[in-house]
Amino acid sequence: MELRENERIDDLQCGGYRILQNTKKFCFGMDAVLLSDFAKVRPGARVLDLGTGTGVIPILMAAKTQAGHFTGLEIQAEMAKMARRSVALNGLEQKIDIVEADLKEASKQFGGASFDVVTCNPPYMENCHGLKNPEDAKAIARHEVLCRLEDIVRESSAVLKSGGHFYMVYRPRRLAEAIRLMTGYRIEPKRMRLVHPYAQSEANMVLIEGSRGGGRQLRVERPLIVYREPGVYTEEIYEIYAWKQETKESGRRPKS
Amino acid sequence: MELRENERIDDLQCGGYRILQNTKKFCFGMDAVLLSDFAKVRPGARVLDLGTGTGVIPILMAAKTQAGHFTGLEIQAEMAKMARRSVALNGLEQKIDIVEADLKEASKQFGGASFDVVTCNPPYMENCHGLKNPEDAKAIARHEVLCRLEDIVRESSAVLKSGGHFYMVYRPRRLAEAIRLMTGYRIEPKRMRLVHPYAQSEANMVLIEGSRGGGRQLRVERPLIVYREPGVYTEEIYEIYAWKQETKESGRRPKS
Repeated sequence: MELRENERIDDLQCGGYRILQNTKKFCFGMDAVLLSDFAKVRPGARVLDLGTGTGVIPILMAAKTQAGHFTGLEIQAEMAKMARRSVALNGLEQKIDIVEADLKEASKQFGGASFDVVTCNPPYMENCHGLKNPEDAKAIARHEVLCRLEDIVRESSAVLKSGGHFYMVYRPRRLAEAIRLMTGYRIEPKRMRLVHPYAQSEANMVLIEGSRGGGRQLRVERPLIVYREPGVYTEEIYEIYAWKQETKESGRRPKS
Repeated sequence: MELRENERIDDLQCGGYRILQNTKKFCFGMDAVLLSDFAKVRPGARVLDLGTGTGVIPILMAAKTQAGHFTGLEIQAEMAKMARRSVALNGLEQKIDIVEADLKEASKQFGGASFDVVTCNPPYMENCHGLKNPEDAKAIARHEVLCRLEDIVRESSAVLKSGGHFYMVYRPRRLAEAIRLMTGYRIEPKRMRLVHPYAQSEANMVLIEGSRGGGRQLRVERPLIVYREPGVYTEEIYEIYAWKQETKESGRRPKS
């Protein structure tokens, strides 16, 4: 695999898989790793990842689950190309398709009720005014430049089969809005987990599972605490990252 | 104070206040205590407690806050009378009114935009079918026999001044519904805290603050953990109950 300018290959420490990232563009963070661990997928399931970026979520989930097939949707041509090269790097061409398209048209692209599972790590920031480089890959990943949360929830609802599952990592700040949109588009919140940097701090991420047309019954799981103390991750984070003891002791850290 | 059949007086361990409870009827639990600690009230504020039962929430908040006046609304005549006797027992007649009325008509009773704060510990259970004694005080406190969550949220929205605050303790199971109703009636969720029996267990209560007509911005606070280990409360629970060290060491426990 030939590396282009500003590119690097990272070991995902999971199934031997690796990923290409461009250090000048958006690199995946802890949110993507936590989401791919939180999502539960039945053997053989067809999974769609909306706004897949580097393709990290389908690649991690290909290692961690028995899903049948993944489609990663990405609107940015360069990102989609790099994600495809990562898929090839891992020999996953039969398992993961990267499709360059606008997620706002996902249901037109794939048809209704065509997936068992949708995953998404959406941009969190609402305000796009005053962005210096709104066409920049980092801005697109973080701000609602090209899609809003409502687009994501609407399209997810349309492409999911009845009883299919929706998994999203989001910010607690906008949780009420996410729940309102999900229930409005008939994706009933079923399971939720708050992520707190420390046991004594506010949540800074939320993992949420919804069921298309499901009944009303939400479970809020035990909190996920990231750091035991400054610079030291909790056991659970080490387990999610599947770091080996040597890695742990050498103090290597996930990007967050 | 003369005690009637099945009545007992409990020390609230807070401002020297005490409360009457009828052991055959509904006795307050940890949810009421946590809610009165979670609610923030400005000095002089007018507070309405919907479905006040024994009056425990206004009595605890009279001790803990600088609120100007409390109204406790209670539909059950006998409960309302006992709550009034508890108010008198503590010499709080100038501070707390107990009004016997139906909370579904709260805005007719008090007029719109008449309170700064509404508190509520509503019945959690949706299904009232097959209840053996639906007129029983425990059933009324726990099941939606006489009011539904929507009645509570609708009336709270109507009686709250613009920018006024709504505080509720509820079950995570129905959190999505609570958020949907709150946003629907323009009470925007602003602050939330999940209560977990142990650090490693699912949440079994949720404390939620909303602001009438407020902006969209939710904070999820650090989790509230009840037990450090079986039979031993966490420091925070001891602090909320304001137990003294002797009490703590004698192993006295809150009702939950």
